Amino acid sequence: MKATILTIGDEILIGQIIDTNSAFIAKSLDKIGIDIHEILSISDSRQHILETLKHLQNQVDLVIITGGLGPTKDDITKKTLCDYFEDELVVNPQVLAHVTELIEGFYKRPITQMNKDQALVPSKATVLNNKMGTAPGMWMKKENTVFISLPGVPYEMKYLIENEVVPKVIKEYKRPFIIHKTILTYGQGESLVAERIEAWENNLPEFIKLAYLPNPGRVRLRLSARGTDENMLKEAIEENVISLSKIIGDIIVGYDENETLEVILGRLLTKNKMTISTAESCTGGKIAQMLTAIPGSSNYFKGSIVSYSTEIKTEILKVPQELIDKYSVVSREVAIEMALGAKKLMKTDYAISTTGNAGPEKGDSPAEVGTVFIALATKNGVICEEFSFGQPREKVIDRAVNTAFEMLQKEILKNV
Amino acid sequence: MKATILTIGDEILIGQIIDTNSAFIAKSLDKIGIDIHEILSISDSRQHILETLKHLQNQVDLVIITGGLGPTKDDITKKTLCDYFEDELVVNPQVLAHVTELIEGFYKRPITQMNKDQALVPSKATVLNNKMGTAPGMWMKKENTVFISLPGVPYEMKYLIENEVVPKVIKEYKRPFIIHKTILTYGQGESLVAERIEAWENNLPEFIKLAYLPNPGRVRLRLSARGTDENMLKEAIEENVISLSKIIGDIIVGYDENETLEVILGRLLTKNKMTISTAESCTGGKIAQMLTAIPGSSNYFKGSIVSYSTEIKTEILKVPQELIDKYSVVSREVAIEMALGAKKLMKTDYAISTTGNAGPEKGDSPAEVGTVFIALATKNGVICEEFSFGQPREKVIDRAVNTAFEMLQKEILKNV
Repeated sequence: MKATILTIGDEILIGQIIDTNSAFIAKSLDKIGIDIHEILSISDSRQHILETLKHLQNQVDLVIITGGLGPTKDDITKKTLCDYFEDELVVNPQVLAHVTELIEGFYKRPITQMNKDQALVPSKATVLNNKMGTAPGMWMKKENTVFISLPGVPYEMKYLIENEVVPKVIKEYKRPFIIHKTILTYGQGESLVAERIEAWENNLPEFIKLAYLPNPGRVRLRLSARGTDENMLKEAIEENVISLSKIIGDIIVGYDENETLEVILGRLLTKNKMTISTAESCTGGKIAQMLTAIPGSSNYFKGSIVSYSTEIKTEILKVPQELIDKYSVVSREVAIEMALGAKKLMKTDYAISTTGNAGPEKGDSPAEVGTVFIALATKNGVICEEFSFGQPREKVIDRAVNTAFEMLQKEILKNV
Repeated sequence: MKATILTIGDEILIGQIIDTNSAFIAKSLDKIGIDIHEILSISDSRQHILETLKHLQNQVDLVIITGGLGPTKDDITKKTLCDYFEDELVVNPQVLAHVTELIEGFYKRPITQMNKDQALVPSKATVLNNKMGTAPGMWMKKENTVFISLPGVPYEMKYLIENEVVPKVIKEYKRPFIIHKTILTYGQGESLVAERIEAWENNLPEFIKLAYLPNPGRVRLRLSARGTDENMLKEAIEENVISLSKIIGDIIVGYDENETLEVILGRLLTKNKMTISTAESCTGGKIAQMLTAIPGSSNYFKGSIVSYSTEIKTEILKVPQELIDKYSVVSREVAIEMALGAKKLMKTDYAISTTGNAGPEKGDSPAEVGTVFIALATKNGVICEEFSFGQPREKVIDRAVNTAFEMLQKEILKNV
């Protein structure tokens, strides 16, 4: 079963917004065994939409359309779908009741004609109820293809995919199995990993595909097996993961498809009843932010001192002014004192600190742009490493955050 | 002049990664007057790539391809391009020298055969030098279409777009002018804004298009003018923005296309020589992280206390324990004390605090999931507001961060 994801909106084509919806939809469909044929973004142009619908007709089983369902003039998806299906817009009483309740009841605003027009749907469409907003989802079939139109607002789209689209597809279609397994490695580059596992890769059965997903400092390997016998696929993946781990077990840090290092760390800390705090200069709170993005992080994360200015390093983290004068704010000595200061102040088992120059220009320190010191204080003392992360600023910050997580993980694994 | 952006990679089609490259490329091309026809993602399949290249041939002037240039087996873009052009791969000595220098000189690792293979390029390709990595960019022309292949690693792709692709396109092609202007508004929904400006919108000239880009709590309006007379376009946009601001001046907060509220705030704070600190509970450091993501933020941002645990609220921010016992950690009283505590501790002109329950479960407080208090301490005292941001967790955090920025902006504008 094949699907194409179609995003409609000029704002995507001029690069004003990043299309995050398609990845969410792709992942949700992939999980239930639907092959994503293509992901396509086109403009808010009637002609372009009509040509694209025609092109996709009978090429795929499902077309998931997002965007262009708003109440304003540039939102033409609904009208154009109606034209494509040679249909007419009619008021859907159930949608109208919902829109009225949402605007007048929840938002306490007088309802406008534009609000009411959200309840107009093509007469041939099956409505997918959007509890999160005013634009309903629509399911319309023509020949061998179902066209599903969803609003582009991410949480409305997510709600509809999870609560309407996926259940309806599962109920109405038989699908093959796709099993994915992702292996997270760190510390070695893509080429080196590939050379180490070459013989293993050549021995993979036909129905298992391997993909390399490189990021700075880490490589994910993804195995995908496809077929009709779910158990056989699972066993084959399992066997190949075991044989792989015999070859590169030294660099494997995790397995879960959605697992990030922060999630793994959270689990390790929770399991060992340990706590962490951070003292962040160049990462500006991003370590704290990524840790706290995870539900349940209050079990192990106590807090962070984002010490962007020197006074906060000396007054709150108690870094001696003499050290800063002697070695500068971007130095091993200061990173160590920051980590020790945070550990003491926030009474945690671990404390991570960062100090560096993220660029683009030199700051209060003679350190080169891209230089970062990361220190980790533990019950056994403190370790500190120096890195050169180059440029741009955003990469320096991201690599510092990832590296901090890696140092922490190594240290926890040493002690448990 | 029309371009299509083509992303190759199974990891995008199964939703494992979000395609951020296409938005960057689209924005860069749009700026130099190139129309983006479509953005398309396809799988790492030889057949699918060949069919797509054939379909795009002569449909557009430029095809920008990213992905599939790595050294491993699943990276087949280069080989497939070679087949499409009926060409052969040859060693490019300049690329080989660069790869050798990067691996042996910078990374201090022995060079492998896979590294060396990165220097193989189709003989008909013009190489675009990739100073940021080992995979070169390639520029190949067939009939009326230029195919440009770039690595998928974001900072390598960005480097090549900015330093190789855009300059070469500017040199070799004549393009029309496209002028965009974005108007940022906040506080009113899309329907309400649309009704207020309906008459103005109906009077826009043919060559100016209006788009609505709604986000929770804010709506961006984008005007796009296209034509051959740059000055005329600029004047027409300018006139229409002035007439628009007479209608909805009360909700307009900024104009720059790329401008985020953090950037506007940074400029306001710098201009007024004012400083800011934050005390963050439910936002977990995200306000600090977004402020410090901006180059030059050390001029106005001093630091943050991410007080995830109650002890950090009482011991570092000096929130009285009695207040917490009486009103709970998620309360107006605690938010106010956190902001005052941060302002005093970090000696800043403004301090923002957040405390709330981001969910998905209830925490240490009886407050409903989604409840957030945001306080802002200024030289004139402290203001605090209560919000219900619903769910999911990620939306609660994002809306709290955006709302905090809006409260700060309103307050600064009141005083300057």
